[in-house]
Amino acid sequence: MNSENEIKTIAWIGTGVMGRAMADHLLKAGFQLRIFTRTRAKAEPLLQSGAAWADAPADAAAGADAVISIVGDPKDVRETYFGANGVLSLERPPSLLIDMTTSEPSLAIEIADAARAKGAGSLDAPVSGGDVGARNATLSIMVGGAPDDFERALPMFRAMGRTILHQGDPGAGQHTKMVNQILIATGMIGVCEGLIYAQRAGLDPLRVIESVSTGAAGSWSVSHLGPRMIARDFEPGFYVEHFVKDLGIAVAEAERMGLDLPGLTLGRALYRRVEKAGGGRKGTQALFTALEELAASTSDSA
Amino acid sequence: MNSENEIKTIAWIGTGVMGRAMADHLLKAGFQLRIFTRTRAKAEPLLQSGAAWADAPADAAAGADAVISIVGDPKDVRETYFGANGVLSLERPPSLLIDMTTSEPSLAIEIADAARAKGAGSLDAPVSGGDVGARNATLSIMVGGAPDDFERALPMFRAMGRTILHQGDPGAGQHTKMVNQILIATGMIGVCEGLIYAQRAGLDPLRVIESVSTGAAGSWSVSHLGPRMIARDFEPGFYVEHFVKDLGIAVAEAERMGLDLPGLTLGRALYRRVEKAGGGRKGTQALFTALEELAASTSDSA
Repeated sequence: MNSENEIKTIAWIGTGVMGRAMADHLLKAGFQLRIFTRTRAKAEPLLQSGAAWADAPADAAAGADAVISIVGDPKDVRETYFGANGVLSLERPPSLLIDMTTSEPSLAIEIADAARAKGAGSLDAPVSGGDVGARNATLSIMVGGAPDDFERALPMFRAMGRTILHQGDPGAGQHTKMVNQILIATGMIGVCEGLIYAQRAGLDPLRVIESVSTGAAGSWSVSHLGPRMIARDFEPGFYVEHFVKDLGIAVAEAERMGLDLPGLTLGRALYRRVEKAGGGRKGTQALFTALEELAASTSDSA
Repeated sequence: MNSENEIKTIAWIGTGVMGRAMADHLLKAGFQLRIFTRTRAKAEPLLQSGAAWADAPADAAAGADAVISIVGDPKDVRETYFGANGVLSLERPPSLLIDMTTSEPSLAIEIADAARAKGAGSLDAPVSGGDVGARNATLSIMVGGAPDDFERALPMFRAMGRTILHQGDPGAGQHTKMVNQILIATGMIGVCEGLIYAQRAGLDPLRVIESVSTGAAGSWSVSHLGPRMIARDFEPGFYVEHFVKDLGIAVAEAERMGLDLPGLTLGRALYRRVEKAGGGRKGTQALFTALEELAASTSDSA
């Protein structure tokens, strides 16, 4: 890689729980960061660690070697890139634009096309691994875009994640993340139902988890979130409201491709039920409450 | 443990794929086996290794220290214990009766009551881990019954399994196995849907599994059965027809407890669809074909 191509200065957009931890790893790896985020207070720890502040995405991006964004939802991504003060309002944007938000595959393609028109490359690179993965730099990073751009981004990705895979053309990273969310949503239904069954049958559900988690029924969800459900600890690792957003994208994409996915449909309906009942800021394990309620209502009428 | 209580001779009922491998471990551990199974040919390898043959469950059980059964379904279990030549037709059955079939919790309680009336103890001890777990003696054994009987059975269980947990009163082992099957059925829907989505989106599904399996979407099912689905390898590790039987028990038990479990209901309906389409002797990963069909029919009408 020649020095002209080397990335030194990064415009970093978005410092939520994930973004803040990820940006911190880049600072520690020696990159220079120029930060924009909606609520400046959330960027303070990074500013104190040497990052510079910018008042808009375009200001952060002007003159930087790359942009990395990790914001709330597709609307925020659109604003970041296509807004009046967005990255692509610059006549000459940075040569590499990376969106790590979980967002729409079609929007990733739209950004890629617009970037290419201005001579820039772009990657969609959503992550999984949650706040713990962000803090420990053990994220799985799922990447769509041109192979050359993927290669250029690797030093940054390696500072933030462990499983880093190029999955295909623009949008492929987002599609891969949708697969991830489909697996989680459907698997979580089983975890909740299994534990509700265990409780109703008079079993010790923690002991049941010991019996079932080492074999064919084993999953990250049952081992990590099962015990929290039993303890009725619904503190967020990952917010229900963000998951509902992700599942909405998955359902829309599946429909667009003409796919009927009944498990995903059920998972989304149940998670929306949790959100409507005021659980949007609880963790995804709060799905347990929705299924408990369903079970109870059946039980009452029985 | 005094020598009077020690178990040396076991009546072993049922030598299917699981039973044969499990019985072999007991022979190697020094137990004497007296075998009855419906198709004598299936017992031949064990007879050649030193086990004795019996013409009926009662004949195998007469004078033995314990009985272990692992047969097809609850009807077979009932025949084994309550049939004309069943174990409980003996005036003095062995002092410990262990059913390792995946069967009905209520039947386990019925056997426990009948055994107690004849001065015998009993355990329900279904397993998970499949043929591989049976061969490698790494099964998870989920046990219901009296603690004393559990203690007495441990030397036998330790020859066959690795995760061996007492889960409660008679029926608790079966209930724990139902939790296991609920987790698998619902999780498998997600694995199928995720991979169908991945293929339709033009991704390389094996590469997608690499990205998603190390994090919160990870499960035994996606890591072990996902690649077989992609390869369209539907060879049985565990038969669809057996799984449909198990899910029928789980649904019936849930209904009896007044529980509405929509994921389990969906899983059972989809697995029955596979069976009706002639897939009863395929492996559980053949669920993929049912969901593909659903997806295709939607796609055609779109």
